[in-house]
Amino acid sequence: MDGHPFFRFCRTALENIRAQGRYRQFTPLARQAERYPLYEQPEAAATPATPACPRDREVVVWSSNDYLGMGVDPVVVEAAIQAIHEHGAGAGGTRNIAGTSPVHTALEAELADLHGKEAGLLFVSGYVSNQASLQTILTSMPGWICFSDRLNHASMIAGIKGARGSTTVIYEHNDLADLEAKLAAAPADAPKLIAFESVYSMDGDISDIAATCALARKYGAMTYLDEVHAVGLYGAQGGGVSQRDGVAEQVDIIEGTLAKGFGVHGGYITASSDIVEYLRLSASGFIFTTSLPPAVVAAALASVQQVRKDGWRRERMFERVNTFRDKLRRAGVPFTMTPSHIVPIPVGNAERCRELSDRLLNDYGIYATPINYPTVPRGTERLRLTPGPYHTDQMMDDMVAALTHLLRLNDLTEAPPVAAMA
Amino acid sequence: MDGHPFFRFCRTALENIRAQGRYRQFTPLARQAERYPLYEQPEAAATPATPACPRDREVVVWSSNDYLGMGVDPVVVEAAIQAIHEHGAGAGGTRNIAGTSPVHTALEAELADLHGKEAGLLFVSGYVSNQASLQTILTSMPGWICFSDRLNHASMIAGIKGARGSTTVIYEHNDLADLEAKLAAAPADAPKLIAFESVYSMDGDISDIAATCALARKYGAMTYLDEVHAVGLYGAQGGGVSQRDGVAEQVDIIEGTLAKGFGVHGGYITASSDIVEYLRLSASGFIFTTSLPPAVVAAALASVQQVRKDGWRRERMFERVNTFRDKLRRAGVPFTMTPSHIVPIPVGNAERCRELSDRLLNDYGIYATPINYPTVPRGTERLRLTPGPYHTDQMMDDMVAALTHLLRLNDLTEAPPVAAMA
Repeated sequence: MDGHPFFRFCRTALENIRAQGRYRQFTPLARQAERYPLYEQPEAAATPATPACPRDREVVVWSSNDYLGMGVDPVVVEAAIQAIHEHGAGAGGTRNIAGTSPVHTALEAELADLHGKEAGLLFVSGYVSNQASLQTILTSMPGWICFSDRLNHASMIAGIKGARGSTTVIYEHNDLADLEAKLAAAPADAPKLIAFESVYSMDGDISDIAATCALARKYGAMTYLDEVHAVGLYGAQGGGVSQRDGVAEQVDIIEGTLAKGFGVHGGYITASSDIVEYLRLSASGFIFTTSLPPAVVAAALASVQQVRKDGWRRERMFERVNTFRDKLRRAGVPFTMTPSHIVPIPVGNAERCRELSDRLLNDYGIYATPINYPTVPRGTERLRLTPGPYHTDQMMDDMVAALTHLLRLNDLTEAPPVAAMA
Repeated sequence: MDGHPFFRFCRTALENIRAQGRYRQFTPLARQAERYPLYEQPEAAATPATPACPRDREVVVWSSNDYLGMGVDPVVVEAAIQAIHEHGAGAGGTRNIAGTSPVHTALEAELADLHGKEAGLLFVSGYVSNQASLQTILTSMPGWICFSDRLNHASMIAGIKGARGSTTVIYEHNDLADLEAKLAAAPADAPKLIAFESVYSMDGDISDIAATCALARKYGAMTYLDEVHAVGLYGAQGGGVSQRDGVAEQVDIIEGTLAKGFGVHGGYITASSDIVEYLRLSASGFIFTTSLPPAVVAAALASVQQVRKDGWRRERMFERVNTFRDKLRRAGVPFTMTPSHIVPIPVGNAERCRELSDRLLNDYGIYATPINYPTVPRGTERLRLTPGPYHTDQMMDDMVAALTHLLRLNDLTEAPPVAAMA
């Protein structure tokens, strides 16, 4: 069987990935629930890329998408533990096969209420919620045209591309003139869907939801909005940018995640009862999969309830983001200014980006993921930093000092200064 | 926006689903970790279909896919709780973005070892492991031909259908003569993949893995085996039917789940290092999604280790299955004999199947999911029972008595007997 061409194909593909400097080595890091954003880097995790790693040291993580630290919030932790004691570690079946606990339906109702929609539907991940929902909608009737923002997330693209028979029209990123031109050029009677995000996570920019919905009304299109990087963070109750802008009711389908601002796991959509019912009974990726463990759902429900009623984490996060930007600015460290909570540090080269991340980890005990292709286009490689409510001034000063030093170096593979090794 | 045709489409589709008797109402049931297979049915969950539901009563569940009860095993529960205390409720990022904990890599190594493969890769679900792996493989090179068993699971079909540019050849279910004829008829130099399952979960039959692999060798095809309903249950260490039959090394890719025999959540593949590395670096459904929570992974690792070293649950499950079949046989209740642990009770009509399930729940406090289209073809509707190590003789006698009574009724909507209401 060594003769099967796929084995040769894999070897060649891996050689090419390495040659292009975009081989990804995952860095094992164990989150410390009581000391977030500190993670433990186990000695066993030392790799050729991180030879100097001392044993079991603590690392400050700047790349987590648990933006508010809700995954380590005592209320959330306690809800998860209580549910495991009561119901065990897994769901034991699909939603239809004994895998619907009362807490699943309670969380779906809570999410619908958060977004002001009639109903909600849980999926095993945000990725699956996008892929399964979009693919199911766009194959429901003949002739669908999906207008998709050029920078939509891979999960939306997977659902849109997977919808055979539908037509995809890609409009330029956040370019409403381009969207309108393309809507106007499409057949008036074709069923249309505009698929877009609120916060684009890699660039940190934010779309104009109201204006997009106005175009949708003008041209008879439905709207599908991904609020994955916004739920928990924006709006008076963490309902996302659509809540902040007071336009949630204008959006037909709002998709979100429980794994970022809410700190747990899983994805969801909210919409009218009819749409949710249709997806519940039709979407393969919803039907044929074990439902989320009751403990995950109970933790997520506790998190959503906490985040809705309690705004200090949101306020603190934005204060931290602003403080960090001030410190970067004063030190002359280049960063991309964004209207969101995301702080990209442009690097522009895959190998240098990875080396910068390695040096931060090895010399300074700071972890910031290198963001390379295929996550972002080649030539736009970056570090993507997400300051949160638990990043202290001292952590920020350490990060700024490290970046100040490392970004001045032409060759990031040279030996670290003695001081940094301490 | 009420004018969008999708809203009308949904209403009509839902009316049709109801008219066909295949509207699915999920029954909220709360698993009782310390009393498995007992679940609590909350009063609030009473529906029009279950008007007689007394408040918060206990129900015996016969449909769980947590076949061995590992999800409520004290070792597994303790591992989950310990991990939540240490690491919190969620992973906080994708595998590449601070979402790889040391326990993720430990579980991948454990699963690779279980199946005798070089490497393993975790996915958020078994569905996603099939969809993402098959789609990525079948789009890797031009000209792929996938030979797919007619009864393969929806998740495999999603991956195979999603692989644009590849060719799909469906062979009759477990029909190796048909498979060989179709392999022989295909171009000799095309890259070929045979995708099949070991235990087909709805019919409970088992494929001939050795003979399938022999055909693969003869015609230069790779093999992809879904062991989702077999891992934990078959083989000396629960490595599935491929382990039981001593042929795991002949299979190129073995896919499994952590959510059924192992009782927790998530899916995986195991294969050669090159294949796993290629999928790790290429599969969209693996890359762009938050990794499984450390607590889920820690619980799964504890479960796999426990199941490998400790065969009594497997033995006890098969003893229970045989005892139950004996009881059905003696009572004259028709069931489909299978070579697996699955006991289908044929019904053959969607409405009657649902009514049978309703009556079991309402009159007897027994839950058995009605299996209707689209899970099985129309006309083959059934109850699908999964006796496990914790089903007692008394529970079996109660189930047999209930089925004996209900299956004799022509009209399942008639009032229940007074005795059964007690």
